[in-house]
Amino acid sequence: MQNQMTGRLRKAPENFVQGDGVATVFAEAKAGRRSFIRSAFAAAAAGAAGTSALAQGGQKASSVGDGDPNILEMPAHTKGLGQPVVTDGYGKPSKYESNVQRRQSPGLTQTRQASVSFAPLQSLFGIVTPSGLHFERHHQGWWDIDPSKHRLMVNGMVKKNMVFTMDEIMRLPSVSRFHFIECGANTGMEWGNVAVPTVQYTHGMISCSEFTGVPLITLLEMAGADLKKGKFVLAEGADGSSMTRTIPMELITSGEVIVAYGQNGEMLRPEQGYPLRLVVPGVQGVSWVKYLRRIEVGDMPYATKDEAVHYIDLMPDGQHRQYTSIQECKSVVTTPSGGQMLLDKGFYNISGLAWSGRGKVKRVDVSVDGGRNWRTARLEGPVLTKCLTRFNIDWVWDGKPAIIQSRAMDETGYVQPTNNQLRAVRGTRSIYHNNSIQSWALREDGEVVNVQLA
Amino acid sequence: MQNQMTGRLRKAPENFVQGDGVATVFAEAKAGRRSFIRSAFAAAAAGAAGTSALAQGGQKASSVGDGDPNILEMPAHTKGLGQPVVTDGYGKPSKYESNVQRRQSPGLTQTRQASVSFAPLQSLFGIVTPSGLHFERHHQGWWDIDPSKHRLMVNGMVKKNMVFTMDEIMRLPSVSRFHFIECGANTGMEWGNVAVPTVQYTHGMISCSEFTGVPLITLLEMAGADLKKGKFVLAEGADGSSMTRTIPMELITSGEVIVAYGQNGEMLRPEQGYPLRLVVPGVQGVSWVKYLRRIEVGDMPYATKDEAVHYIDLMPDGQHRQYTSIQECKSVVTTPSGGQMLLDKGFYNISGLAWSGRGKVKRVDVSVDGGRNWRTARLEGPVLTKCLTRFNIDWVWDGKPAIIQSRAMDETGYVQPTNNQLRAVRGTRSIYHNNSIQSWALREDGEVVNVQLA
Repeated sequence: MQNQMTGRLRKAPENFVQGDGVATVFAEAKAGRRSFIRSAFAAAAAGAAGTSALAQGGQKASSVGDGDPNILEMPAHTKGLGQPVVTDGYGKPSKYESNVQRRQSPGLTQTRQASVSFAPLQSLFGIVTPSGLHFERHHQGWWDIDPSKHRLMVNGMVKKNMVFTMDEIMRLPSVSRFHFIECGANTGMEWGNVAVPTVQYTHGMISCSEFTGVPLITLLEMAGADLKKGKFVLAEGADGSSMTRTIPMELITSGEVIVAYGQNGEMLRPEQGYPLRLVVPGVQGVSWVKYLRRIEVGDMPYATKDEAVHYIDLMPDGQHRQYTSIQECKSVVTTPSGGQMLLDKGFYNISGLAWSGRGKVKRVDVSVDGGRNWRTARLEGPVLTKCLTRFNIDWVWDGKPAIIQSRAMDETGYVQPTNNQLRAVRGTRSIYHNNSIQSWALREDGEVVNVQLA
Repeated sequence: MQNQMTGRLRKAPENFVQGDGVATVFAEAKAGRRSFIRSAFAAAAAGAAGTSALAQGGQKASSVGDGDPNILEMPAHTKGLGQPVVTDGYGKPSKYESNVQRRQSPGLTQTRQASVSFAPLQSLFGIVTPSGLHFERHHQGWWDIDPSKHRLMVNGMVKKNMVFTMDEIMRLPSVSRFHFIECGANTGMEWGNVAVPTVQYTHGMISCSEFTGVPLITLLEMAGADLKKGKFVLAEGADGSSMTRTIPMELITSGEVIVAYGQNGEMLRPEQGYPLRLVVPGVQGVSWVKYLRRIEVGDMPYATKDEAVHYIDLMPDGQHRQYTSIQECKSVVTTPSGGQMLLDKGFYNISGLAWSGRGKVKRVDVSVDGGRNWRTARLEGPVLTKCLTRFNIDWVWDGKPAIIQSRAMDETGYVQPTNNQLRAVRGTRSIYHNNSIQSWALREDGEVVNVQLA
């Protein structure tokens, strides 16, 4: 991690950047609200010291906090009668936030039914992902299934096959827990050293929600599952992709795996598997089977198409990594990030997300010099297991080029690797499970671009 | 709390129940998804014991988990191609959830611009309130203010008056925290012993979100506020209601009060004060000034119209309770709750919410016999300070009349009072701050109705 200020600036492939979504986001990010293009900020100019970093930011006199009070003179909303209470529908964001959307990457997929949309991480705060901005990954499109007709079957190595209605499931003892879900392919373009321009596209296949549902172990106990011989469970979705994945029984007996119907306080969204999806904390998203219709208990892995052919990684020795499931510890700075512009030096709040499929995030360090020096960031509470953790750290930009990185450590002691450390183990031909340190280069002109350090 | 099975059944006033919103919710709640009207549930019939309560529920044979597997035969969504990824807008709930909405109570207010809409607590899970269902309380309607034109002024007992743009505020060190917001008038109809039919209307002026913003103390320090003589702060909103409230300085120096722009991961919604609102954890919602445009530091309470004339309670001795701010410990069972139907005996998950403006919820007890016997419920994590806490407890209904209640205790040792305990102190002429134990009577026919016990 020493002396790595030489990050190559990479040109993004034409077909990727020219895609409608990417180009739009890129343009909007350069021009937009999160670009900090207003006059420079300097705390000392305000006549008082805040934090020490705020005070450091004071080397440049500026007009911050010194705005024209005339703008406070009676705008329309101060004089008039506003809109009535919203009772004829479901509330929506401000019209000024219409650029904050999930975006598809046209370069990655052939059809929009078997595609991905990315969450706008550069515009999000805290750890909860609004359900309307939750990333999507469909294998054969999404459906709005009538919950009164949906059923969940439990079969295989059980005393009695069972078929549950939604009402029956919703009468059972429930739990509510916050967890992240990350597609195994998140940050996959970095394997190929593709300069994906914004954090929405590098890391936007992750979201975090409060899920509510019934622990799967409750259903297995009701069906009299053989928990000694039954070492694995097959989870099957009802949509046309016939998504099927093997789940190790130890994840289920721990009580962590949930048959979920609730997400962020309401019922699951159709794009997320309404009315029922499996929640497998810490495990890659493909195992969180949507439109869940069947659970089968078995004594060996099922080697389904979705785990034997898809979602495998080619290792340097020619073998495939299979049944990869746990999402290792990872982090990314979301502000400032690719496509954003810092138009003047001074104080900034560097903010980002960290997570681990093995437990809680223990620490996040941030470097602004490509890994030569690291400072420990502040973690926003609550820090929960297998959940996003928001970090923040003060920074005063001196106007010189910088490379901004974050490095997370989880409670097992695992440290997020550099690109070289990851490739030493996994080679360069993987698609999935890239959790290496992300580098954002800040140029002298204030533009932030995606670079890849060793 | 002994022998209180005599809860009066109360007839709701015509003008309240006949209101469009109430009638609709009442009808839907009786017929709807959360009504558990499907065949009875019995774990023993499944051939395996789950929890002990599940086993107890087995006294009645039933068809639960014994559904017709033929329904698994190839529905359209298993054969066809679904909808493409959603990239042309903001995601929405399922069409089957269209009855889950915030509702206005026409009987309570004269105009919809100075009105209330209630969150559908009976349909919500966990602790996060989806922003599209967050309760509303407007004094002169809501606005979608252009954030590029919005300013926040800090003045009064400060070294330098300051005016901040949104961009300037968003560059400052930020925090993200989960807190509930409750209107001081929530459950106010219970003072008058009005049989508000559903929990949406009895308790739906509460919501809970993850808020992101800048601690107010940071802004005050930047402006050089006099933190010794400055004992109070005035918060002023930009909308036509000129909402102004006094906030004691000790809440601000603790770092708890936030000038927030983020809510549940995205920017605030217009109905909630976009682009800036004050977050005053534990304090009644009226102090969470929306469209925040000015903070003034002063040495005495401001006695504004919103704290001297409105939001006051008449005590038995003829004096008014003023500057009431902290929302005391409170809880409510949301399922089963008023308007819902239990059509058969057997196992149920009793679920509800608890909160305290003084800290964390320590314990919630649940009674099904009107307060004679209490069992301690399971609290879902994380249990956070001045935040909603979800509780759950197993229950097997024997088919006889029951009165379901919850009673919360916070970390200060304060216990949620009965109606009589509260009235002994506050009398009967208050409007605000009713935090007494809520009672739901379950009739033999399975209907759940709002009753008031002593």
